[in-house]
Amino acid sequence: MVGIIMGSLSDRKVMQEAADMLTTLGVAWEMDIVSAHRTPEKMVEYAKTARDRGLRVIIAGAGGAAHLPGMVASLTTLPVIGVPVKSSNSIDGWDSVLSILQMPAGVPVATMALDGARNAGILAAQIIGSADERVSQKLTQFKEELKEKVAEMSRQLTIAPAARP
Amino acid sequence: MVGIIMGSLSDRKVMQEAADMLTTLGVAWEMDIVSAHRTPEKMVEYAKTARDRGLRVIIAGAGGAAHLPGMVASLTTLPVIGVPVKSSNSIDGWDSVLSILQMPAGVPVATMALDGARNAGILAAQIIGSADERVSQKLTQFKEELKEKVAEMSRQLTIAPAARP
Amino acid sequence: MVGIIMGSLSDRKVMQEAADMLTTLGVAWEMDIVSAHRTPEKMVEYAKTARDRGLRVIIAGAGGAAHLPGMVASLTTLPVIGVPVKSSNSIDGWDSVLSILQMPAGVPVATMALDGARNAGILAAQIIGSADERVSQKLTQFKEELKEKVAEMSRQLTIAPAARP
Amino acid sequence: MVGIIMGSLSDRKVMQEAADMLTTLGVAWEMDIVSAHRTPEKMVEYAKTARDRGLRVIIAGAGGAAHLPGMVASLTTLPVIGVPVKSSNSIDGWDSVLSILQMPAGVPVATMALDGARNAGILAAQIIGSADERVSQKLTQFKEELKEKVAEMSRQLTIAPAARP
Amino acid sequence: MVGIIMGSLSDRKVMQEAADMLTTLGVAWEMDIVSAHRTPEKMVEYAKTARDRGLRVIIAGAGGAAHLPGMVASLTTLPVIGVPVKSSNSIDGWDSVLSILQMPAGVPVATMALDGARNAGILAAQIIGSADERVSQKLTQFKEELKEKVAEMSRQLTIAPAARP
Amino acid sequence: MVGIIMGSLSDRKVMQEAADMLTTLGVAWEMDIVSAHRTPEKMVEYAKTARDRGLRVIIAGAGGAAHLPGMVASLTTLPVIGVPVKSSNSIDGWDSVLSILQMPAGVPVATMALDGARNAGILAAQIIGSADERVSQKLTQFKEELKEKVAEMSRQLTIAPAARP
Amino acid sequence: MVGIIMGSLSDRKVMQEAADMLTTLGVAWEMDIVSAHRTPEKMVEYAKTARDRGLRVIIAGAGGAAHLPGMVASLTTLPVIGVPVKSSNSIDGWDSVLSILQMPAGVPVATMALDGARNAGILAAQIIGSADERVSQKLTQFKEELKEKVAEMSRQLTIAPAARP
Amino acid sequence: MVGIIMGSLSDRKVMQEAADMLTTLGVAWEMDIVSAHRTPEKMVEYAKTARDRGLRVIIAGAGGAAHLPGMVASLTTLPVIGVPVKSSNSIDGWDSVLSILQMPAGVPVATMALDGARNAGILAAQIIGSADERVSQKLTQFKEELKEKVAEMSRQLTIAPAARP
Repeated sequence: MVGIIMGSLSDRKVMQEAADMLTTLGVAWEMDIVSAHRTPEKMVEYAKTARDRGLRVIIAGAGGAAHLPGMVASLTTLPVIGVPVKSSNSIDGWDSVLSILQMPAGVPVATMALDGARNAGILAAQIIGSADERVSQKLTQFKEELKEKVAEMSRQLTIAPAARP
Repeated sequence: MVGIIMGSLSDRKVMQEAADMLTTLGVAWEMDIVSAHRTPEKMVEYAKTARDRGLRVIIAGAGGAAHLPGMVASLTTLPVIGVPVKSSNSIDGWDSVLSILQMPAGVPVATMALDGARNAGILAAQIIGSADERVSQKLTQFKEELKEKVAEMSRQLTIAPAARP
Repeated sequence: MVGIIMGSLSDRKVMQEAADMLTTLGVAWEMDIVSAHRTPEKMVEYAKTARDRGLRVIIAGAGGAAHLPGMVASLTTLPVIGVPVKSSNSIDGWDSVLSILQMPAGVPVATMALDGARNAGILAAQIIGSADERVSQKLTQFKEELKEKVAEMSRQLTIAPAARP
Repeated sequence: MVGIIMGSLSDRKVMQEAADMLTTLGVAWEMDIVSAHRTPEKMVEYAKTARDRGLRVIIAGAGGAAHLPGMVASLTTLPVIGVPVKSSNSIDGWDSVLSILQMPAGVPVATMALDGARNAGILAAQIIGSADERVSQKLTQFKEELKEKVAEMSRQLTIAPAARP
Repeated sequence: MVGIIMGSLSDRKVMQEAADMLTTLGVAWEMDIVSAHRTPEKMVEYAKTARDRGLRVIIAGAGGAAHLPGMVASLTTLPVIGVPVKSSNSIDGWDSVLSILQMPAGVPVATMALDGARNAGILAAQIIGSADERVSQKLTQFKEELKEKVAEMSRQLTIAPAARP
Repeated sequence: MVGIIMGSLSDRKVMQEAADMLTTLGVAWEMDIVSAHRTPEKMVEYAKTARDRGLRVIIAGAGGAAHLPGMVASLTTLPVIGVPVKSSNSIDGWDSVLSILQMPAGVPVATMALDGARNAGILAAQIIGSADERVSQKLTQFKEELKEKVAEMSRQLTIAPAARP
Repeated sequence: MVGIIMGSLSDRKVMQEAADMLTTLGVAWEMDIVSAHRTPEKMVEYAKTARDRGLRVIIAGAGGAAHLPGMVASLTTLPVIGVPVKSSNSIDGWDSVLSILQMPAGVPVATMALDGARNAGILAAQIIGSADERVSQKLTQFKEELKEKVAEMSRQLTIAPAARP
Repeated sequence: MVGIIMGSLSDRKVMQEAADMLTTLGVAWEMDIVSAHRTPEKMVEYAKTARDRGLRVIIAGAGGAAHLPGMVASLTTLPVIGVPVKSSNSIDGWDSVLSILQMPAGVPVATMALDGARNAGILAAQIIGSADERVSQKLTQFKEELKEKVAEMSRQLTIAPAARP
């Protein structure tokens, strides 16, 4: 089971991509709103009980001064994946990226690209798949589909080489 | 009483300037090591009991993905002053600055310049001085001294105009 | 009483949020247009008489090469809160942020996030509330409302988990 | 088993910290020099055979236009942890960070802080520990030690409060 | 013959400008979709056979963590021109630029401006033209046309000096 | 007469280059310490009386949140040249540059490169030389010397082409 | 007479503001399209004959890798004002700003804010006004109007304090 | 023949690496000091006569507001390779990189990494080698040597796996 959390419903549009990817890869997930700055106690509770509730990986999305992924990582020994969200009050996303990425030695957060929730879902599946053959096979199949999409685009280019987009 | 906290002894060199400034301005202070990522429970305890322990302002210094000032601000209604520290693992200080400055609406942190602990001490005194005449007078006197230092530098320049530094 | 100033009417949309927040928290405020670059004498007059006119905190918003907060801070011993405004001629807001944040030792400005006027209002209330029980209680109540909003969002998520935004 | 690779011996000083951390946490590792730009075939071979050789996680360090972590991630379904190294020809580390972090949807790299090899080791252990009780216990113990270090620093501060560093 | 490749059909709008420029300058070209991250084997094949298939220059466009130009350059001795594309998931284009530009010593990529596919076409023609008189003459003529366009704009300005745009 | 001002004696090493350049070009100058933040009244007085005291141009150097050039420009109609100084508390000089450069419409500051005091001296001379034949000739002669220096370096290269520096 | 040049008609919308400002301040101007990269010979001719044609100041606007202001400055002893234009192919304007601002010692360009053509007109008038009483008086009057605009905005705020924008 | 130019002898240490690389790859070269800003006429002459003097490629190194590569490219149809040099007056190299890279459509410069003169030599050889079998073979051999160096580093790592650097 993968836990997906975010500080506000406004982040859901981005974070739902992580959930959808997990569904595609056959991994169960749950989702909740947990805010580092508005509900610090709920965050502490969530992180400390995560392993015992059966979570294997936590995906946390946040924007601006994004403290949720790092604080959750400080409160659990589970792998935490951080998704910097380019929220409306962000300075081009730099704040979200740096406040998740630049964690001090001792407390890692696996940081994804800006708004990279889809990759967070894949990485969570890879973590589970590193010890789970069924998920690993789904990932291999997913990689094949990525390759096939490129082949399809390549064919489209060949069929209509003169057409301008 | 002003509480000064930081995540590591390595930040003390910078943060001691806040304490010294407070001493100069006649304001009492205490100092402790409190780490958002290594001692999250101590941080929660520190912040939640701060007002009742008689603190009026909290100064928090941190570097890299600097979560201490913002997390403390989420746990108290006292004014929190954040000092971005240019630690060794920082990307030119940008990470420290942005992860303290860019707090979401609802939870402000009064952010100082990079390594600006001295100004944190002055601001804490100004906050106390806004309702305390004695501290306010110390601040007025401090401003006079700043002015006098410039006058002194101006005299040095006049005395030795041709000398090259 | 909190004084709210800005260099132009075009900054009002952002800065009004500070005033509204103060109203919510039961703190009186006044507002004026004061430009560092177009009305330097008015700015000097405003800052030097602020304490005697009964102001306890000054909130100053400015964009681009934003000199208003720092110059006002140089002319008073009151705490000054600076709001970097992402004006139309700004380079992604970096100029506004850096020219408010990076004040030299001796003259602090409590810097907020880009366009963070709402937090400026809260911080001003916290400063006043650090010595005023009534305002302090309003702040505690405000923090409870932040928490309740997250609980409400969490419920919405649970009610409609399958719905895609 | 965790595979640690880097493009050049000059990255070893940084990357050895990942190995040391893994040793501390009781996780086996191997280390090799694999360059995306100088030995692309070796890189392809390394990545494609990694799972069958028994690797569970790959840690890849690289600087400048850092393509090694992302390219390895494109060639395996194992989780790949990327460490941006601040090499001599880097522009303040921004190139290393962005060329590892900003992977397109479909191919995640778990990105660490600049020169954050130690955290790469911890994250690799967390990934293995999410399904391995023994490693999980080592991680819990490691977290306790982090906490104890802060307590020790806090004591040092109390013993010698007046001493200036 | 110049080979033009890109990671996705979504880059075609930008990259077609390179093809059009080559047509204008009388240089033959071919175009294909080749993704470093989704079709690494196809990329290796493409790059290793490029010279034997008669290609003289390769133009590769990519966005975000843009590894295609550098990886192709690592697999061929042909000159490789990289076009950083400002894709939707890019951080203002900085990631695309830095992950193409900052190649390590030994493996150059001739980097163009952000979205500078047109210049990639011109540079490819200049490379061929440095040993091909016919193409060189086309380039001279193209430079004359650039000059003439400025003269025409200058005339427009003179004819209607008072008109405001 | 050109007025050269700066906020602190620590800026003098950089700013003296402006004075030396003016001496070389035969333009009189005076120098003083004037701080926007520590001596705002002196700054107002300096700027408002500058024209009547016979100044034709003002050169102002400042670092960090550099308000001196812009504030002086707001208080005089003389041309003001700003020199961003890379002071010790600066974030790589970006704060100094942006807080001088990004002046709002109505109040220009002629901004020089970071630490570009020498060019400030030349520009001041060019301003005076635009209506003063003698200074103009000095500038022409200075340009010849720049050219001659390159010729000399070119000769050195030719004499010892094989020598490695 | 002030010469206003730019590399393309697309820059005219921005650069016309310089001309309008000069008209307001009673200073004559001429305007032309001169491109450093497309018409280098015209640029050389323009710059070398500028003084003899009666120009006193040159205003040059350019975007991206903006070489026009610096190259013109290398070819004349007149003061050159550079306006960084945020053109469509610019990386947020940073390229335009830095390639105009960071001129080497010996060849200054008076750099304005991004798209700051209006201030270029004012600075050109200030340069001429430093030796021309009539223009100087216009500038004093212009400063009064800036002040009056703020007073007017202040009145609007007072009349409708409750109205939300 | 490849022409290598730079604005000052101080750039020679970096630029000599281009020459050395060309020597290694069996390509003839010449070197000169040509400054865009101090010797614009020499630059025009150099660029316009380059092709007729037998040059096939021009490598131009420059720092700060680096106009030399782009201006030379505007004056010739030969391929021009630009090397951004991190000179002492540069803002972390960003100015050098952006003022070379961001050339407008019509005038390409093949931009190398910061201080990437060695790669400039290799790219020049690749350009010549794209139509010259002998140089092409040297490049293939050079690529083999890069691979062998990695193999050697890999062996060193195996021999002394426990040794800490």
